[in-house]
Amino acid sequence: MTISAAITQLHQVLGNRLTRSKSDLDLHGRSETHFPLTPPDAVAYPETTEEVAQIVTICAEAGCPVVPWGTGTSLEGHSLAFSGGVSVDFARMNKVLRINEADMDVVVQPGLTREELNRELRATGLFFSVDPGANASLGGMAMTRASGTTAVRYGTMRDNVRALQVVLADGRVIRTGTRARKSSSGYDLTGLMVGSEGTLGLVTELTLKLHGQPEAISAAVCAFADMESAVNAVIATIQMGVPMARIEFIDAATAAAFNLYASADLPEAPHLLVEFHGSDEGAAQDAERFGEIAAEFGATGVQSATLAEERNALWAMRHNAFYACLALRPGARSIVTDICVPISRLAEAVEETRDDIARASIPGPIVGHVGDGNFHTVLLFDEADEAERAEAAELSARMVERSLRMGGTATGEHGIGVGKLDYMAAEHGDGWSVMAEIKRALDPKNILNPGKVVRLN
Amino acid sequence: MTISAAITQLHQVLGNRLTRSKSDLDLHGRSETHFPLTPPDAVAYPETTEEVAQIVTICAEAGCPVVPWGTGTSLEGHSLAFSGGVSVDFARMNKVLRINEADMDVVVQPGLTREELNRELRATGLFFSVDPGANASLGGMAMTRASGTTAVRYGTMRDNVRALQVVLADGRVIRTGTRARKSSSGYDLTGLMVGSEGTLGLVTELTLKLHGQPEAISAAVCAFADMESAVNAVIATIQMGVPMARIEFIDAATAAAFNLYASADLPEAPHLLVEFHGSDEGAAQDAERFGEIAAEFGATGVQSATLAEERNALWAMRHNAFYACLALRPGARSIVTDICVPISRLAEAVEETRDDIARASIPGPIVGHVGDGNFHTVLLFDEADEAERAEAAELSARMVERSLRMGGTATGEHGIGVGKLDYMAAEHGDGWSVMAEIKRALDPKNILNPGKVVRLN
Repeated sequence: MTISAAITQLHQVLGNRLTRSKSDLDLHGRSETHFPLTPPDAVAYPETTEEVAQIVTICAEAGCPVVPWGTGTSLEGHSLAFSGGVSVDFARMNKVLRINEADMDVVVQPGLTREELNRELRATGLFFSVDPGANASLGGMAMTRASGTTAVRYGTMRDNVRALQVVLADGRVIRTGTRARKSSSGYDLTGLMVGSEGTLGLVTELTLKLHGQPEAISAAVCAFADMESAVNAVIATIQMGVPMARIEFIDAATAAAFNLYASADLPEAPHLLVEFHGSDEGAAQDAERFGEIAAEFGATGVQSATLAEERNALWAMRHNAFYACLALRPGARSIVTDICVPISRLAEAVEETRDDIARASIPGPIVGHVGDGNFHTVLLFDEADEAERAEAAELSARMVERSLRMGGTATGEHGIGVGKLDYMAAEHGDGWSVMAEIKRALDPKNILNPGKVVRLN
Repeated sequence: MTISAAITQLHQVLGNRLTRSKSDLDLHGRSETHFPLTPPDAVAYPETTEEVAQIVTICAEAGCPVVPWGTGTSLEGHSLAFSGGVSVDFARMNKVLRINEADMDVVVQPGLTREELNRELRATGLFFSVDPGANASLGGMAMTRASGTTAVRYGTMRDNVRALQVVLADGRVIRTGTRARKSSSGYDLTGLMVGSEGTLGLVTELTLKLHGQPEAISAAVCAFADMESAVNAVIATIQMGVPMARIEFIDAATAAAFNLYASADLPEAPHLLVEFHGSDEGAAQDAERFGEIAAEFGATGVQSATLAEERNALWAMRHNAFYACLALRPGARSIVTDICVPISRLAEAVEETRDDIARASIPGPIVGHVGDGNFHTVLLFDEADEAERAEAAELSARMVERSLRMGGTATGEHGIGVGKLDYMAAEHGDGWSVMAEIKRALDPKNILNPGKVVRLN
């Protein structure tokens, strides 16, 4: 069967939920970062697991690539159809299927976004913790092993996915995991699927852990004279055992970006944004202990955000950091870096990166989930200027080399897609071959999101 | 090459660290539960990763089974050489290689036990949290995805292994994971290896997460009139959001066993054993809130263990529960069950199990990590009595069916080995086939701990 015959057959199954309009193809051929337009051959909008299984079965017969699509907010080209094929858009599979308050979990479809989920949970006293900047789909977040500001306290998607329903490359549907809080029953297929970027299966249902809304929340922002002081304050806070719910770093360039984009009024200096969750007393005590540590490192202009609206504005600003940085140079494209190093090397990694960017001709604001040792630069370049693009690519490569040299990883939370493929051999050695062996075993025709995570030749 | 030629070659590599003495073979053919004596053909005592790789390479050429051995305390026959071959005993690879206090992690060899590790950590203010009853090896604990009393707060081995060094079935050595706190870089090979029971690779080095010693610890024991009250007190404690470090259930039979084995002085009634970690104020407050909840469910005889020695005695007693239960019927063999259900079904699962055991002719004391929804029975039978053995097997099978029916798992922390193989199809459906596909891809000759976790024909 040819790809075009497969698409005809898919049309019979899905009717007008299989589109080939140029605008829809282009929409699914675009990403938010530096990749070229790569439209798929068709876009499918399934409504059930059975339909997803039918799509995969038909595509498998034709050797037609199947590329999952959530909200298109991934940063490494994960959702792009570099080899053509069918983009499977989960927009119509966006329901909350079941909230289990007593067990603190929820069963959702993959197209639901994290903000939609938390809106649905509002009345329960529970919340879903993982919060990347974008209002991403939960399926996409599982597939890239996403995290965000709260991972330092509540973990990443690795820690917050309890079970999955997955359509495999041959159309079989499996359930991984159970609703029990732990299990020793065989290989951890849930863990294998989380972070597999749609290359081993398409997720059609997720069971996610929820957390109780803390009794009290206290947040604060403070400025530092230099990066070293800010990062060293973070390290001291961790080592003193102060339990943080969030501890975020922004550099002076990002503070300037926030002032422009979010009408903030921050001094153009490095800042920490922090939040503490606990009992009324506990959260206040933690905030106080942090304040003392920050003061030792010369923090100034400490602003507490005690009201919910103030905190929401603070974190909305942080979540929009990527867009705020993009707005610093209208029309520019970006390479976003995402290294994560052991905490003991964080200050060194941030300083070397800052110095490297300071020597460059392009801007690269720095923001980071520093409690995890994870930070980003948004390297902004003029798409038409090959020298600038090359400079961005080299800065990015040096950051990864720096991270690996310090015992860290090329990507803390964005994933590999195609954008970080070149670093896999250096990070994993023969482990990368093992990933390819697993891919070949589970997707022998290489139809599931081909070209991502592994190279098969 | 034949197996015996392989053993000759191993002898050249290892000298007298390759033994074939009957006593050593028998020692490595025994388990603590109900499996028959199944000695390997030889026992190897490697001292380095390179030696482990040599052992595997030689065995691969001969198609000779390689069965890893830690302390032999697993309960499902994991370490037994059912198809003969070489038992690889990690007793000589038991070093702490590196403690990274700033990053709160430690690099160890697989033969080190959890108690030895915590002794080495004593001066650092850090501790390793995972604590199965036995003083198991850390390699074995990773391979069975072990947990224990503190998983409710600090997680299982899944959550506490940061990185691994692994010898694959063809002798290649890989490193999985990094020392960064999180990563999105490709498939989670660390997670795939944890819980794989030596069927996908032999672990030769582990990087483990450590936790800060809490400022304050408070523990207590209390008795309840019946099981329902005890279990419902647990559920209420969880739902009130009281952060427990440990919350353990024992039934009246286990209390009696503790009185005999550990010279305890407990009323023969169901009990909860609890512990709270936090600041001085926090831990005291949590203990107080628990006390109030327990009182609502009729708890009596509340005994606080405020001194370190009292707490150590309390948890030593709990850790020896398996041996205490065995001592209830000297000479008996045991089948140990290990189901784990969603918390909302815990009371029902415990009650059905209690009633089932009450109707049986053999004893089956119940103990459980109830904060996780996980509980065990130690089913004691006379090895010479086929009817008793069958009765134990049927009780165990009904427990698993009960757990699966309630959305739980066959094993919360003991693993599959050969003892729970028969339940894999029911729990995982086609997911079990996926496990076999992964096994075939990574160990095509089926030499690594064959016959465990998956069935290949």
